[in-house]
Amino acid sequence: MPVYNAPTKDMNFVLHDVLKVSEADIPGYSELEPEFTGAVLEEAGKVATNVLHPLNAVGDTEGCRFENGVVYTPTGFKEAFEQMKEGGWTGLDMPEEYGGQNMPYVLGTAVGEMFSAANQAFVMYQGLTHGAASAILAHGGEEQKNTYLPKMVSCEWTGTMNLTEPHCGTDLGLMRTKAEPQSDGSYKITGQKIFISSGDHDLADNIIHLVLGKIVGGPEGIKGVSLFIVPKFLVKEDGSLGERNAVSVGKIEEKMGIHGNSTCVMNYDGATGYLIGEEHKGMRAMFTMMNEARLGVGMQGLSQAEAAYQNALEYAKDRLQGRDVTGPKNPDGPADPLIVHPDIRRNLMDQKSFTEGARAFILWGATLIDQAHRSGDADADGLISLLTPVIKGFLTDQGYDMTVQAQQVYGGHGYIEEWGMSQYTRDARIAMIYEGANGVQALDLVGRKLAQDGGKHVMAFFEMVKSFCKENAGQDEAYDKAFIEPLKAASKDLQAAGMYFMQNGMKNPNNALAGSYDFMHMFGHVCLGLMWARMAKAAASQLAAGATDAAFYETKINTGRYYMARRLPATAMHLARIQSGADTVMALDAANF
Amino acid sequence: MPVYNAPTKDMNFVLHDVLKVSEADIPGYSELEPEFTGAVLEEAGKVATNVLHPLNAVGDTEGCRFENGVVYTPTGFKEAFEQMKEGGWTGLDMPEEYGGQNMPYVLGTAVGEMFSAANQAFVMYQGLTHGAASAILAHGGEEQKNTYLPKMVSCEWTGTMNLTEPHCGTDLGLMRTKAEPQSDGSYKITGQKIFISSGDHDLADNIIHLVLGKIVGGPEGIKGVSLFIVPKFLVKEDGSLGERNAVSVGKIEEKMGIHGNSTCVMNYDGATGYLIGEEHKGMRAMFTMMNEARLGVGMQGLSQAEAAYQNALEYAKDRLQGRDVTGPKNPDGPADPLIVHPDIRRNLMDQKSFTEGARAFILWGATLIDQAHRSGDADADGLISLLTPVIKGFLTDQGYDMTVQAQQVYGGHGYIEEWGMSQYTRDARIAMIYEGANGVQALDLVGRKLAQDGGKHVMAFFEMVKSFCKENAGQDEAYDKAFIEPLKAASKDLQAAGMYFMQNGMKNPNNALAGSYDFMHMFGHVCLGLMWARMAKAAASQLAAGATDAAFYETKINTGRYYMARRLPATAMHLARIQSGADTVMALDAANF
Repeated sequence: MPVYNAPTKDMNFVLHDVLKVSEADIPGYSELEPEFTGAVLEEAGKVATNVLHPLNAVGDTEGCRFENGVVYTPTGFKEAFEQMKEGGWTGLDMPEEYGGQNMPYVLGTAVGEMFSAANQAFVMYQGLTHGAASAILAHGGEEQKNTYLPKMVSCEWTGTMNLTEPHCGTDLGLMRTKAEPQSDGSYKITGQKIFISSGDHDLADNIIHLVLGKIVGGPEGIKGVSLFIVPKFLVKEDGSLGERNAVSVGKIEEKMGIHGNSTCVMNYDGATGYLIGEEHKGMRAMFTMMNEARLGVGMQGLSQAEAAYQNALEYAKDRLQGRDVTGPKNPDGPADPLIVHPDIRRNLMDQKSFTEGARAFILWGATLIDQAHRSGDADADGLISLLTPVIKGFLTDQGYDMTVQAQQVYGGHGYIEEWGMSQYTRDARIAMIYEGANGVQALDLVGRKLAQDGGKHVMAFFEMVKSFCKENAGQDEAYDKAFIEPLKAASKDLQAAGMYFMQNGMKNPNNALAGSYDFMHMFGHVCLGLMWARMAKAAASQLAAGATDAAFYETKINTGRYYMARRLPATAMHLARIQSGADTVMALDAANF
Repeated sequence: MPVYNAPTKDMNFVLHDVLKVSEADIPGYSELEPEFTGAVLEEAGKVATNVLHPLNAVGDTEGCRFENGVVYTPTGFKEAFEQMKEGGWTGLDMPEEYGGQNMPYVLGTAVGEMFSAANQAFVMYQGLTHGAASAILAHGGEEQKNTYLPKMVSCEWTGTMNLTEPHCGTDLGLMRTKAEPQSDGSYKITGQKIFISSGDHDLADNIIHLVLGKIVGGPEGIKGVSLFIVPKFLVKEDGSLGERNAVSVGKIEEKMGIHGNSTCVMNYDGATGYLIGEEHKGMRAMFTMMNEARLGVGMQGLSQAEAAYQNALEYAKDRLQGRDVTGPKNPDGPADPLIVHPDIRRNLMDQKSFTEGARAFILWGATLIDQAHRSGDADADGLISLLTPVIKGFLTDQGYDMTVQAQQVYGGHGYIEEWGMSQYTRDARIAMIYEGANGVQALDLVGRKLAQDGGKHVMAFFEMVKSFCKENAGQDEAYDKAFIEPLKAASKDLQAAGMYFMQNGMKNPNNALAGSYDFMHMFGHVCLGLMWARMAKAAASQLAAGATDAAFYETKINTGRYYMARRLPATAMHLARIQSGADTVMALDAANF
């Protein structure tokens, strides 16, 4: 049975020593004093460890059931969901007028990491609700907000996102779901949606489906897509629940993982729907949900890696096997613990340096979102828009790989379901796929985000790295060698790749697109390199100031040195691949594969 | 429902155009004319596609059952197993005197790839039998051979390997299973073994367990381990089955994959066992099984990748989504097939260039085994001994990654069990773990094999690469640039890593061991680079000779160009990691992780 310990100490380090959130000039941030964030994180950590984590294996083993048209969640989910609601954990960053607590997104993100690490499948019920509520908040009318948001912020009602159809996922222009205008201003929605996470369940009185469809007679393709609210139960004028809408579950899917979440085929048979925002502008509204969702999914990459790592570490300390080649470390025992072996160390350090780097990356990203939303900072908005596909694609790919490495530490026991390591791998796998498969993230990054606003945001990123290096170099030779130099080299590789795209993508866009996936990974490594350089700097400052917990800060610096020395060199490989161009990638006729 | 097409054409290319097996000076190889191997592979391919493949999903879904002490295999396995026996597919490379067909190992390996690709869990029943029979063949007495081999070669009886115990896997010196000598020369075996593949089932009349245990009073640790034959049913002098032995199934494990194979906890309660070979020399006998098994497991990496790739390719050709950025390729359809997109190409080319390279690598390795065993060639034996951990570790890691990539092509459909792509990933995962986890392979490679016989074999490998480059360079500029130069560079990286180990491993062995995993991967890339250089050469010769199937050979060259340009640059990254030494890997105290 796996364990989960909330990494609140590391979160506090990132929030306060590195990001210095309470000093940031963002509305609401002055409240983020260590005492306050510490208390919130402690409480959230308890919920994660004591309420959500024990249900993680239950959800995996039992899965959801679909009987006589009704979806049942695994044993204990209903009670835990009530606890989440009662504890006020469902609307942390939502506006107070709808019952939320109006906390900065960065704090909600830190809390979300722990919930997701403890039970990804469970947290998706409220995660999708949050995404749907955000879209209504951003694009809905006043009446829609008043009708739905209070109930969704409290999770009395939950939400879903309905995009995918059997024949189209990425290419939503092919969508067939149709919306017929009615005389009362509503629409009749007809079509089939698949892979609907939290599509139906027994946790809430009502489910608010946000559904993409095409208004009959509208423009073809993606330009004719609108977004609708389709409640499971129609809502009467007084806010009470009316009749059942014409939406039903076709089946629930058997999946590789996240068994505790009900992934449904949803059938809309002339269901009553209400337009959100303008006609044919559904994609714009959907992107509000998707961008937030993509950050949340990137976080799942981290959260599953963190949970898996914690267990791999315990096992490596506990399991006795073989002897340290430099001399026994447990001479009185029959063998030394696994952790003495260099290759086990390599494995664990990969994981540790990834999760801590990813945590800093995501929390930094969350501050950019706050800066964009709360301060209306367009530069921050542009930067997080650029980084969103990196956070989603890189962190979920790497996060998955780390769960695989964690499983590997267990040897054969990692393959047996009993030990729980397989579940981390199986659950983490979905994050590379949903909310835009990672190849689509790479395409978004290279095909759209790089050139956005004339390439301003990527230039700002490089400038930021450069300034950081300039400001922090020349004070400590060891730091320069271990952090500044590798960061500069990696950033240079990334710039060279961008230059290659500019020079060769004009001639043939495939020269850029064939390198998009490598570029996304390079970019991720540079971001984590930057995070480690910042964290090492912050840790050194604490040590210089005589911090009592010296071991924590020294470990932080050493973990960063590992990332810079052992992981960052990947950028050169990605650059070599990119610079080989599209030639070998596109050489074959489809028929000759 | 996935498809599987036997890649016989590619196998024939490797066997005849590249390895030129029928011209090789190895006993039995002169029979390997294209007509003969073609006929065997065609027939085997039909069995794989028509008999084994349809049961792959059945095995995954149903799994094995354990009821009232009896293990039942999934529906259809029994009938298919009978077909395998009747077709003579169980003892292809076994000696004729025991009912085998005495075919070269290389042909059995090609057949094995197809069987394993079609149904890995099923083929393990006969695979373990083959391994156990090989150990008896190599180390058993005449009577033991006569008693067990005919039945095992025909798979009338099956076999198992019993190494792992709850508290020890890699470190077999910790073993607790004990063997008490009896007056009749037999032993009473007592202990518990876990993770026993094909441990019990309903496919055979008897199961011959090969069990490692310690004879009471013998030396401590690994030097006191002996190997025993423990039949499920004791065999009477006339060869008929006698009473049930004191060996029973404790339970069958719930695993991430290979559900169709029964993975058992086996309890030995004073079971009658017969010593194989000498007392306390059990590890030597076990290594006979393990080396063969490791090659077989490396092949599983290839086979699952191949099966997954075939399906990803079909899906990429079939699924319409988005448009080719350089202009529509399917203008009359609603969208273009996935395969037009550069990032999908990258994904597919990774897979294709891996599987074809891996196939050549494994078949070449199999010829080395034949050369060692049939010609008594000590150099070939040394070389395959060096390459065994590379074949096992690199091909299973990469093979797994390729199944993940294949799954990714399907988007959300890849995560749904219905489409079968999850099974390839889940099944492939075990190959990185069993028969020595891949970290142990890396340790074997760097800690033992590199220095074996004074480093002679690794020097011979480098010399072989050098000779190949020398002989083949200077005839075709394009070939030199695409193949010879990258191969030289990668081989140079590998040599630099070996040099680093020699220079720094003396001071501190951790400097070598911390780089062992990277070294294993580098070595694998160089081997595949060599294979691609050889294949491209062979393909060019066929084209020059006016081969009718020009598209096949041109595709081969282009696929090779992809590998050299896009995958081989990984060696530089691995070298950089290795050269960063053990410092950052070992920096943390265990308590500070």
